[in-house]
Amino acid sequence: MSKFLELEDVSAAACCAPLSGPILGEDEAAELARVFKALSDPVRLRLLNLIAASEGGEACVCDLTTPFDLSGPTISHHLKVLRQAGLITGERRGTWVYYRVVPDAITRLSTLFALPASA
Amino acid sequence: MSKFLELEDVSAAACCAPLSGPILGEDEAAELARVFKALSDPVRLRLLNLIAASEGGEACVCDLTTPFDLSGPTISHHLKVLRQAGLITGERRGTWVYYRVVPDAITRLSTLFALPASA
Repeated sequence: MSKFLELEDVSAAACCAPLSGPILGEDEAAELARVFKALSDPVRLRLLNLIAASEGGEACVCDLTTPFDLSGPTISHHLKVLRQAGLITGERRGTWVYYRVVPDAITRLSTLFALPASA
Repeated sequence: MSKFLELEDVSAAACCAPLSGPILGEDEAAELARVFKALSDPVRLRLLNLIAASEGGEACVCDLTTPFDLSGPTISHHLKVLRQAGLITGERRGTWVYYRVVPDAITRLSTLFALPASA
């Protein structure tokens, strides 16, 4: 049990250090690179923005296609990439899927780019 | 002159809004996507980390190849991508180039991922 807690602590420390902090391990860098790959597309950034800015922090997929001149399947593909990167979650309720950002994932990125006050 | 200031204000407002804030324009999303593309490589993330964590915030290129099992030209290529994305600057002094992060670029990303306190 105590070992389990220790491992959790190590993981938490490694996952949330700023870029100006401890040296990133190869695994951590690879994981972050995957997240940034998901963010390296303008449509996905705008989708994430629409979801994060939605009232109540939740957006119906039915409201996410209108702003784009793209097909439903293309939007679904982009949402799947964001979901696989751990940036959003989707929940089906009736006909539609409703999306939310994953606060921990977004906060982790904010922390990554936090500079020391003296910078 | 006043028009110039107005345009600057608009640009500043658009550039630094969080994901949960105003809707991202297409140009802004495309620009951010380019930055994230530069960050979507583990070696580039580790280079950025090494530079940001260097004493005095500055790293000599001569110290940036040792941690990697990669050739000098490959490291130079990755540094060029980070520089072109506006994330670092390089200054040649004598034999070596010295790199620093661009604080405004890093802070902009931190702001982008800032969630409202209630999230």
